[in-house]
Amino acid sequence: MSDAVTAVSQRANELDAADPLARYRDRFTLPEDIIYLDGNSLGALPKATPGAMQRVVEREWGEGLIRSWNDEHSGGAGWFDLARDVGAKIAPLIGAAPEEVIACDTVSINLFKFIWAALAHHRANGDANRTVILSEPGNFPTDIYMIEGLEQRGLARRRLAPRDRIAEALDNDVALLMLTHAHYKTGEVFDMAALTKAAHDAGALVLWDLSHSTGALPVDLGGANADFATGCGYKYLCGGPGAPAFAFAARRHHSTLSQPLTGWFGHARPFAFSDDFEPAPGIEQLQCGTSPVLGLTALETGVDLIAEIGVGRLYEKSRALSEFFLECVAAHGLDLDLVSPSDSAMRGSQLSFRSANAYAISQALIARGVIGDFRDPDILRLGFAPAYLRFADMAGAAGHLAQVIESGEWRADGFSKRAAVT
Amino acid sequence: MSDAVTAVSQRANELDAADPLARYRDRFTLPEDIIYLDGNSLGALPKATPGAMQRVVEREWGEGLIRSWNDEHSGGAGWFDLARDVGAKIAPLIGAAPEEVIACDTVSINLFKFIWAALAHHRANGDANRTVILSEPGNFPTDIYMIEGLEQRGLARRRLAPRDRIAEALDNDVALLMLTHAHYKTGEVFDMAALTKAAHDAGALVLWDLSHSTGALPVDLGGANADFATGCGYKYLCGGPGAPAFAFAARRHHSTLSQPLTGWFGHARPFAFSDDFEPAPGIEQLQCGTSPVLGLTALETGVDLIAEIGVGRLYEKSRALSEFFLECVAAHGLDLDLVSPSDSAMRGSQLSFRSANAYAISQALIARGVIGDFRDPDILRLGFAPAYLRFADMAGAAGHLAQVIESGEWRADGFSKRAAVT
Repeated sequence: MSDAVTAVSQRANELDAADPLARYRDRFTLPEDIIYLDGNSLGALPKATPGAMQRVVEREWGEGLIRSWNDEHSGGAGWFDLARDVGAKIAPLIGAAPEEVIACDTVSINLFKFIWAALAHHRANGDANRTVILSEPGNFPTDIYMIEGLEQRGLARRRLAPRDRIAEALDNDVALLMLTHAHYKTGEVFDMAALTKAAHDAGALVLWDLSHSTGALPVDLGGANADFATGCGYKYLCGGPGAPAFAFAARRHHSTLSQPLTGWFGHARPFAFSDDFEPAPGIEQLQCGTSPVLGLTALETGVDLIAEIGVGRLYEKSRALSEFFLECVAAHGLDLDLVSPSDSAMRGSQLSFRSANAYAISQALIARGVIGDFRDPDILRLGFAPAYLRFADMAGAAGHLAQVIESGEWRADGFSKRAAVT
Repeated sequence: MSDAVTAVSQRANELDAADPLARYRDRFTLPEDIIYLDGNSLGALPKATPGAMQRVVEREWGEGLIRSWNDEHSGGAGWFDLARDVGAKIAPLIGAAPEEVIACDTVSINLFKFIWAALAHHRANGDANRTVILSEPGNFPTDIYMIEGLEQRGLARRRLAPRDRIAEALDNDVALLMLTHAHYKTGEVFDMAALTKAAHDAGALVLWDLSHSTGALPVDLGGANADFATGCGYKYLCGGPGAPAFAFAARRHHSTLSQPLTGWFGHARPFAFSDDFEPAPGIEQLQCGTSPVLGLTALETGVDLIAEIGVGRLYEKSRALSEFFLECVAAHGLDLDLVSPSDSAMRGSQLSFRSANAYAISQALIARGVIGDFRDPDILRLGFAPAYLRFADMAGAAGHLAQVIESGEWRADGFSKRAAVT
């Protein structure tokens, strides 16, 4: 072992000993012998979650039955309020007011609601020609795909501009600027306040996808004056596989918002069973079908834990982790092609490296118990969920990476290319 | 106790002793001292579900982490296949082929997809004027509401015709006939084959909402030549509160189907991360966002149990239960205003009664441990989930009902009107 490697290994132990968040690792279940660098795909399991699931399944569903929808019947379960309650808990993590966020549906569905809402907003303001939805090529696919259904019928036009050309693409046709705050592949972060202002100056509304930000980076939707946002419950919020998403609409839009998924849970009085839809006055209007109670319960447990740790401290540790990982890589003498911004202030809680052999390397790492991610066609993506990773994990992962690359271990048959997963 | 009441009480015991499904009650968790007549709102908890939830949460999520999405990584979890696998298990319950059903999103969202798909179908066939969505007034609200978003933009026109006038309302403007097979309030069942044929003869497609049928009544989508269907996972399928819904599209529509919620899980190759949407060729194209794994796992457990019991036997018992309940009511000399069809062959697994005091009566029954449902403005709805109810429950519930009404117990202060729940 070189002196440099010994030094970072020792430094890892010092950093862990001094880490104020170190104790939170024990609040998560993590398998032995695994270094988990994919919390940005699926967050780890909070130890409180199995108990919460048992409560909602056995007590609230099994014993409370239908009564658990109403507080007054269930002694506190209150499933009707769950979507709003979880939303209110997510709100402070993203700089929103509690009444501006609700947990519902998926990111994809929520994007669709807001794209429609932006088009409706401009029509209502006499500007029906604003039908362009502006995003960037290579945005997370579902974000771009959700424009296409409306494009089929001529309701929207898709425009993709590279991130350095977005400002000039904001012309009078743009209804909505729709961007992902931290890029899923590179982790590069947009200047939310500046781009929101640029869009507003051009007469457009703004929709932020916070899937790779929420729970890891500070987000200030209110400070940026953002219009709409949505994000994922199963990444840094540790809500479990396929957790419900959340939706944010700035309060100023509530009274005029129009979205097409007008299901009964978004009705002002769902149990009047009227033939005519009347949207709920507040953020509840963004609900559509019946709330997914089991998924919301797991999400709530994850959100509670992340909120307890605090986004400010998580962000600080996130930057320290990724910076230290790069130190470790350098100590091993690895010369990697970093595609993430080298300044930790400019990226999310991840590092991505370009390599023609990225898939095989990621598979060889998994075989060693280092679970990262591959992103087509050539990206090795390593996520550093700050709530439960140690500095020692950084040193360990860098060591494995060095061995995989230097030994040519990635060339082994079993690591050839096949489909991978977010 | 009158002779008639004694007789039905004794008869209940005989019927339970002879009931081939009696042993399945023990496969569900049911609270002591409760007669649960609301399984048509929220099905009871299968005893297998807590174990399944523990498996998916602690083993698949906690230990398997991101690997559990892929079969080859997880040793069998295979979350990617879950939506299709659960759909394939629901298929035989509704007369569909396994590759025609998928579990995803909510009933409301799936209705929206199919309304759009019907409109697109006619446009593609050069019949763009067919934009009327025909339903009946008083259909379950969300069914009607989901037309309204598209109506805002002139893409669809809503037409509601009373059920005895539907045939004549099927003119050349109708794109889609959208009906609920068993009515949520009255339980009245449509003749699926006849109405599907009438709609097809008039050039329209047909969408069936099976929320109050699936798992309790035989449904033959294939025999009826239906186009689209959706239904609820949390009623007779016992999938838990807010369970994912299912969506059916006849195989003949798969290659031309167009729906606007084009999320990444509906893509032919989600992990190619292409900027352009290309729908999956099969039923997977109806997926949108990431699969709700926790909800799907609970749903799968419920579906497995209902499929094991078998819809044919469930239907037979369902009819026997509701017929016996009416016998018990008659034995008590109660003269109730039945709004459900009196012929059990014409109704779903429920009986609904009209009373100006329906809300207070339902509350007084709940206070006695008989959980039924109130439906605005004046309906007492009693559901007879055949998988776990006994004939003795029928006799017991009728007895409580008689006491509540005859004693005037429902007039007590605590039972005054307030919001109720599906």
